[in-house]
Amino acid sequence: MRVRVESDVLKKNKEIALLNRSFLKEKGVLTINLMASPGAGKTSLILNTLTTLDVPFAVIEGDIASSIDTDTLKSHGIPAVQINTGGSCHLNASMVKRALEQVTFGRCKILFIENVGNLVCPAPFDLGEDLKIVLSSIPEGDDKPYKYPQIFTVAQAIIINKIDLIPFVDFNMEKYERGVRAINMKVPIFKVSCKTGEGIEEWMVWLRKYLS
Amino acid sequence: MRVRVESDVLKKNKEIALLNRSFLKEKGVLTINLMASPGAGKTSLILNTLTTLDVPFAVIEGDIASSIDTDTLKSHGIPAVQINTGGSCHLNASMVKRALEQVTFGRCKILFIENVGNLVCPAPFDLGEDLKIVLSSIPEGDDKPYKYPQIFTVAQAIIINKIDLIPFVDFNMEKYERGVRAINMKVPIFKVSCKTGEGIEEWMVWLRKYLS
Repeated sequence: MRVRVESDVLKKNKEIALLNRSFLKEKGVLTINLMASPGAGKTSLILNTLTTLDVPFAVIEGDIASSIDTDTLKSHGIPAVQINTGGSCHLNASMVKRALEQVTFGRCKILFIENVGNLVCPAPFDLGEDLKIVLSSIPEGDDKPYKYPQIFTVAQAIIINKIDLIPFVDFNMEKYERGVRAINMKVPIFKVSCKTGEGIEEWMVWLRKYLS
Repeated sequence: MRVRVESDVLKKNKEIALLNRSFLKEKGVLTINLMASPGAGKTSLILNTLTTLDVPFAVIEGDIASSIDTDTLKSHGIPAVQINTGGSCHLNASMVKRALEQVTFGRCKILFIENVGNLVCPAPFDLGEDLKIVLSSIPEGDDKPYKYPQIFTVAQAIIINKIDLIPFVDFNMEKYERGVRAINMKVPIFKVSCKTGEGIEEWMVWLRKYLS
């Protein structure tokens, strides 16, 4: 019974995701679904990316409560549409569809959707995006790909943030990468610090290929 | 419809949680449900606590996949019963009930249940525990109580781990505590480093009161 309910939910979600995808394709927008644990640095990565890229953009911010991330982006001159999920632990295509109606697209070329901070529940929900990106962070530890395999399996790129903290924590990069490779053999892995800017350029080079 | 399904699930969960609570009370065991984001240091806190306390204990480890945390505990001589949730993003009372059948209680006085790494989904699920403890960590940021209020509301103690990283990250302790106080006025907040051992003694003093 539980499996049936979940499968119905995912089927319905998929239908709406296809509508979103078709709408976004028509607009000519590259859409990124950014997924991570709480506090991995999703908003910082969006800020770093959008202030480095020289293309018009839009942002949808998903959060259970509060508008802290939307306010952070707005304080940097980045307009963002807020989704409060009302307790739900992930975004779904229907929430994104409603948010899309509020986005001013203009000449927008890239849309970031910041998912709820959660390494589990967002994984199976298609939002209509072009790319699923998983953001890890050094202090979370090198065992995350082993413990939360589903989200690392669906990622089309993985970014490890907070590499400036490597000297102060126990993190074995080789073990982390081995964990990723076991479930997602060819996914690119970018090592960045949103604080110092290190590694952001490599991620930009990769992302720009999808924009051209 | 969705609300009805959730409410039925929580009602059924509550019934089983009451059975667990009654069973554990009969055994004379203090049971702790430990909840946190991925990588906040749940297993490290359990290790630190159990090697400092001088009472017999048991551990139940909840994880989506892998037995990494159980293996870590076993390598320190701590026997743990493993629950693999099979993709589910939180423990429920029924999973814990099955695990309890495998625990060797003997003269056990304290049982730690390590929940799945998730700041959202575990919050409403009673497992039959005596205390719900939320573990935060410094690198996750000072905004977590504002963004994930439900889990901070239900906590009977909050522990902030990784205070050894304070010099290297932007974390405003006053802002964090203000966020906690806004939703959970009297909850004790312990500041610890499982790496250096700093602050563990204050947490021990508090915990020992429940054991006497």
